[in-house]
Amino acid sequence: MFSVTVRDHMMIAHSFRGEVFGPAQALHGATYIVDATFRRATLDADNVVVDIGRAAEELHAVVGGLSYRNLDDETDFAGVNTTTEMLAQVVADRLVERVRAGGLGEGAWGLTGIAVTLRESHLAWASYERAL
Amino acid sequence: MFSVTVRDHMMIAHSFRGEVFGPAQALHGATYIVDATFRRATLDADNVVVDIGRAAEELHAVVGGLSYRNLDDETDFAGVNTTTEMLAQVVADRLVERVRAGGLGEGAWGLTGIAVTLRESHLAWASYERAL
Amino acid sequence: MFSVTVRDHMMIAHSFRGEVFGPAQALHGATYIVDATFRRATLDADNVVVDIGRAAEELHAVVGGLSYRNLDDETDFAGVNTTTEMLAQVVADRLVERVRAGGLGEGAWGLTGIAVTLRESHLAWASYERAL
Amino acid sequence: MFSVTVRDHMMIAHSFRGEVFGPAQALHGATYIVDATFRRATLDADNVVVDIGRAAEELHAVVGGLSYRNLDDETDFAGVNTTTEMLAQVVADRLVERVRAGGLGEGAWGLTGIAVTLRESHLAWASYERAL
Amino acid sequence: MFSVTVRDHMMIAHSFRGEVFGPAQALHGATYIVDATFRRATLDADNVVVDIGRAAEELHAVVGGLSYRNLDDETDFAGVNTTTEMLAQVVADRLVERVRAGGLGEGAWGLTGIAVTLRESHLAWASYERAL
Amino acid sequence: MFSVTVRDHMMIAHSFRGEVFGPAQALHGATYIVDATFRRATLDADNVVVDIGRAAEELHAVVGGLSYRNLDDETDFAGVNTTTEMLAQVVADRLVERVRAGGLGEGAWGLTGIAVTLRESHLAWASYERAL
Repeated sequence: MFSVTVRDHMMIAHSFRGEVFGPAQALHGATYIVDATFRRATLDADNVVVDIGRAAEELHAVVGGLSYRNLDDETDFAGVNTTTEMLAQVVADRLVERVRAGGLGEGAWGLTGIAVTLRESHLAWASYERAL
Repeated sequence: MFSVTVRDHMMIAHSFRGEVFGPAQALHGATYIVDATFRRATLDADNVVVDIGRAAEELHAVVGGLSYRNLDDETDFAGVNTTTEMLAQVVADRLVERVRAGGLGEGAWGLTGIAVTLRESHLAWASYERAL
Repeated sequence: MFSVTVRDHMMIAHSFRGEVFGPAQALHGATYIVDATFRRATLDADNVVVDIGRAAEELHAVVGGLSYRNLDDETDFAGVNTTTEMLAQVVADRLVERVRAGGLGEGAWGLTGIAVTLRESHLAWASYERAL
Repeated sequence: MFSVTVRDHMMIAHSFRGEVFGPAQALHGATYIVDATFRRATLDADNVVVDIGRAAEELHAVVGGLSYRNLDDETDFAGVNTTTEMLAQVVADRLVERVRAGGLGEGAWGLTGIAVTLRESHLAWASYERAL
Repeated sequence: MFSVTVRDHMMIAHSFRGEVFGPAQALHGATYIVDATFRRATLDADNVVVDIGRAAEELHAVVGGLSYRNLDDETDFAGVNTTTEMLAQVVADRLVERVRAGGLGEGAWGLTGIAVTLRESHLAWASYERAL
Repeated sequence: MFSVTVRDHMMIAHSFRGEVFGPAQALHGATYIVDATFRRATLDADNVVVDIGRAAEELHAVVGGLSYRNLDDETDFAGVNTTTEMLAQVVADRLVERVRAGGLGEGAWGLTGIAVTLRESHLAWASYERAL
């Protein structure tokens, strides 16, 4: 099994609802270092899992749709806690949509899975992994 | 599949028995950077894998039970080589005990697995992964 | 010349005023990894630059006064762009106040300088250094 | 499941053939940080996955067979794009050959898998994982 | 004293002349992680050392002039060993030229120094620092 | 001003005397990631600050003289707290002795300073810098 990972980041504001979140119930923010991993059982004719340049562009487009925003004001996330683990899923699902729309080219049809890790600090991170 | 990881560390002394360990048969020590990963198939009502604050506290309690000690003097490890891989299992098993004792709250019943990685230097690390 | 550095972090929301900031004029946020360095020409009788435990506590108190907040709402920062470089100065100056108030003990009188680095992502960071 | 990972690196020149590679079609180079992970279900009598010193030596021998070379001139890679993901497989396969030749000792018969990750920059890396 | 640092990278091929370089006399390559630090005594009216977006763009332009090349073929480096320390100076000097040509705007006139660090692996790096 | 840095590590046991050290008064241990920086105003005829291979060898020899030991038993450190900052000085001073004994060759006569940083965890490190 092969995989290729590309890294980007996003800087957002948000707040959480629920006592479990303690001081994070107040409006605050985070830098998320975002790692997107593309999995595939075999390499293509060029010997790649995916065109890494296009993979980076697609990831950049996805994080660009979240960056420099207050997620509390986004209709997509109304009434939802935008936790690190939940945002990992959002990034992964949006990447899958883009792959299916052809964003990574025909070569990407061979991809079998995507994993996304969001690092919120040097002490904590979350991941979401799904088939494709 | 979702996961959340928290990081802590511990500083211990120990020695190893067996020629395979070479100079590490002498009393020496290590800083272990300890990453504990909690896995779960779905998020709970708060959109989290686990209360990350409590996860960090439970991990801190486990590493606190090993930190600033000479492991050669611990009865738990009498006659045992406290290698990096073995200590990864110790930390994981102790975390599981704490989860089962309710340390992470009722939400933690949905956890399906725990993985622990101990980094002994910038050049070597070991992991242990188990179901929960 | 000796130095000791301790690391902590803070997660805040803020926005910037001025066209130079582009999309960062919108309310967003950041995780700042905060490194505080204490400098001293000679070691004390215990062979330390500073009590590292107390240094970590003082830094934690300073970042705790900024964490989980929207800096746009803080009266200390009214009408001010809370850039990474400016916040590095805020953290350093607040640490100096605490050192002078005795927060690091008498041993800290020998300190000659403090430097603070705030890492806003894997791609950018800022520092401020001052005498003490 | 246990694993142990050791890190080494190699510095090579190469070029790629195919429009998908854009400017990387020109002769250029890379430092690859190489992480080799050895997996095993149980620990041996010494409480290790593998003799970590020998694991590091075997990995060093494998990367030494690629380092400080122009891969375009290597007969092993004639007509082949030596992408990061392809080189991860090369390193893993060569490690497996060495394990089977006894390079890690009899204890290594218990190994169940090997994974190799090559980091080409702070923004991109690739992995290959196989059974053993 | 304030500073702001931005990170980029470049992937090049080259060879060295001189016995001191051992196996690195052969054509090989490197990924250089490039950190450019801009120093300034006081912040400008926007509370910044430099427009960080433009600083990143200027650095990207400089590393873009070196990336994906065989430095042995560059006329700028004819008969010269393109060591890590020498390339740090090249990047710093080219950044200074761009600052003087107005690439960072009028605000950059207040800069007092530039430092550039090139990381060639997880085990070695080199820096060059100069006034501006 | 140029500099070159090489990284190595050492794993030691020790204990501290003095209430300021709290739980670290017990026998424990540490992995120190050791970075040695060599400074020089100009490059030599080969375009290097120092022969990086020999620099790495000399550093390895110095950390080898401390590794896999209980520093409490070393006569060099009798009655002395082997703190991170003190050990940074020990490594730097021993490197200077080796440079003066010719360990880095004649080219090293141009070196103007050495700095050593010891990282004891992801949260704390110490440095010592001296002229040469």
